Amino acid sequence: MTLPRTLDWRPEGPSVRLLDQTRLPVAIAFVDCLTVAELIDAIRRLVVRGAPALGAVGALGVALAIAESEREGWSPAHLADTIAALRSARPTAVNLAWGVDEVLPLLPAGLPAVLAGARRLIAADEAANRLLAERGTEWILDRVRGERVNVLTHCNTGSLATTAWGTALGIVRTLSTRGRLGLVYADETRPLLQGSRLTAWELAGEGIDYRIQVDGAAASTIARGLVDVAIIGADRIARNGDTANKIGSLAVALACADAGVPFIVAAPASTLDLTTATGDGITIEQRPEAEVLHWGDAVVAPPGARAFNPAFDVTPARLIDAIVTEVGVVEPRLIADVSAIAAATPARV
Amino acid sequence: MTLPRTLDWRPEGPSVRLLDQTRLPVAIAFVDCLTVAELIDAIRRLVVRGAPALGAVGALGVALAIAESEREGWSPAHLADTIAALRSARPTAVNLAWGVDEVLPLLPAGLPAVLAGARRLIAADEAANRLLAERGTEWILDRVRGERVNVLTHCNTGSLATTAWGTALGIVRTLSTRGRLGLVYADETRPLLQGSRLTAWELAGEGIDYRIQVDGAAASTIARGLVDVAIIGADRIARNGDTANKIGSLAVALACADAGVPFIVAAPASTLDLTTATGDGITIEQRPEAEVLHWGDAVVAPPGARAFNPAFDVTPARLIDAIVTEVGVVEPRLIADVSAIAAATPARV
Repeated sequence: MTLPRTLDWRPEGPSVRLLDQTRLPVAIAFVDCLTVAELIDAIRRLVVRGAPALGAVGALGVALAIAESEREGWSPAHLADTIAALRSARPTAVNLAWGVDEVLPLLPAGLPAVLAGARRLIAADEAANRLLAERGTEWILDRVRGERVNVLTHCNTGSLATTAWGTALGIVRTLSTRGRLGLVYADETRPLLQGSRLTAWELAGEGIDYRIQVDGAAASTIARGLVDVAIIGADRIARNGDTANKIGSLAVALACADAGVPFIVAAPASTLDLTTATGDGITIEQRPEAEVLHWGDAVVAPPGARAFNPAFDVTPARLIDAIVTEVGVVEPRLIADVSAIAAATPARV
Repeated sequence: MTLPRTLDWRPEGPSVRLLDQTRLPVAIAFVDCLTVAELIDAIRRLVVRGAPALGAVGALGVALAIAESEREGWSPAHLADTIAALRSARPTAVNLAWGVDEVLPLLPAGLPAVLAGARRLIAADEAANRLLAERGTEWILDRVRGERVNVLTHCNTGSLATTAWGTALGIVRTLSTRGRLGLVYADETRPLLQGSRLTAWELAGEGIDYRIQVDGAAASTIARGLVDVAIIGADRIARNGDTANKIGSLAVALACADAGVPFIVAAPASTLDLTTATGDGITIEQRPEAEVLHWGDAVVAPPGARAFNPAFDVTPARLIDAIVTEVGVVEPRLIADVSAIAAATPARV
């Protein structure tokens, strides 16, 4: 199965075309964003999500802003404000702002230059994913016994969360390609079910054997010895290695630490945020209560019910065995500073 | 708000009337079980659930079996087989078998004697709940600073899970009655949402302030210091204190241990299973995959998706600060044997 592209630039309009991830796996539909306001709305509604994908969308969004500005005759100040709004459309993932910042120096050179920069960033993301997947696979195969590795993962970190291949799910793909993958336990990832809707869809497309489980099952699946390694992605990694990722990641890390199962964070170096010292400095996005209280049109709680809906949690570095990036692997228990690998990050696009 | 009774004996029929917990909070509906087969079906479909409630249903079910046997002219062997099937309708909660066994010695004395025994058992369960809630409240108030106690709970352990008042939720009620309750974080409890559907409904009825959260949020809510104590119920407690409870409980315990937050198991002594040495001996019920893969009529996973759906997990005694029952409190880290309090269990009904 060839997956449709998660995101793309369309010369008609022009627009940023997004595969609508809120509709999967029931429907394969696209959202064409002709304006930055539409793109921001799509980002907030999670039509597109996943830290590396948001980086690509940030870069393409700058190109879209230029096109819209030229069409509408915006002042430079209005263009700058619009780009700033795009840059902060979601607070936790660092990659969105990073993607904007990567192409912003090209703004004076005009739309074609920015677009070319965004395309280089997208190509670099796929290359980074494939490289970090190789590094992660090597790290795991050096440490896990057995012919086949059973993996637990949380949320979606595949092609849909990136531009192609994936981070944590990229490692799963590489293990599979090498014939070393066993069973994948995919946490469903409430409230928006990125695991059962998106990860399962990608795994099914690859012909990989998997089981969806409720998030609450992860700890006992790990404690019962059914898993050789847990691999998650990241939305922001602080300088000391503390990692913000989809809500529920911390529970996976705690179960792994208790059971002595390796817990790995896989992310491109663009996810490292050296300006944030520890996880305490990471803003956690609060999402609408309705995401927890409703299911489509169905209400699952009593009238007037309130919900607490943080979209992310922070796993402390002490619970992480390895942070795998395309430029290197850090074991935060040994080196509580990711600056070393960040310094090796390739130059700007 | 006065809650309808979770379960009741109806002389008409006769039948065991169950409040249909699969319909809450959308509808208040009842299922009248006129036969043991209907009762077993209702138990398996979770029309009634919760370990103490299952104990009461087991006792009433023996009365129903006698009535059906008299009506249908069953042989003694067929009656015995039917009662055995009821006794093992669900494998993890010990209370169902316990409830059957409690009234079985009264079988030769006939229906009125068994029914009277079942009613004594139901009255004893409510009394046990109220007493263990007092003990649990005292234990917590001795250890938690602050005027008001913020509680995290998982699944439903209230009136709906018992005959009245509740176990873990009974402690919440008693804290509230004493004016010492702060905010309650109720895990939604996938896959069947006993937290958002049932616990929230009970808390709303009591006017208690609460927030529903996805199960994956529990660890970070605890790690962020938002919770003073976590309290869960139990489906079976092994002799060493290992506790089987709704899937997701283990993750709560791990987060509490990591954060130094007390983790309490609240259950009537009928949940203690001295014949099982440790949690390794507890059978974990596997529920249908469809519970994870569907949401009502909506499919939330790709065609052909598989799920892993254990209904319970086992929290090791080393992670439990206190097991609170009506006959006493055991701190398993100090005394890894619950026999002492089990020996104090009141005599049979």
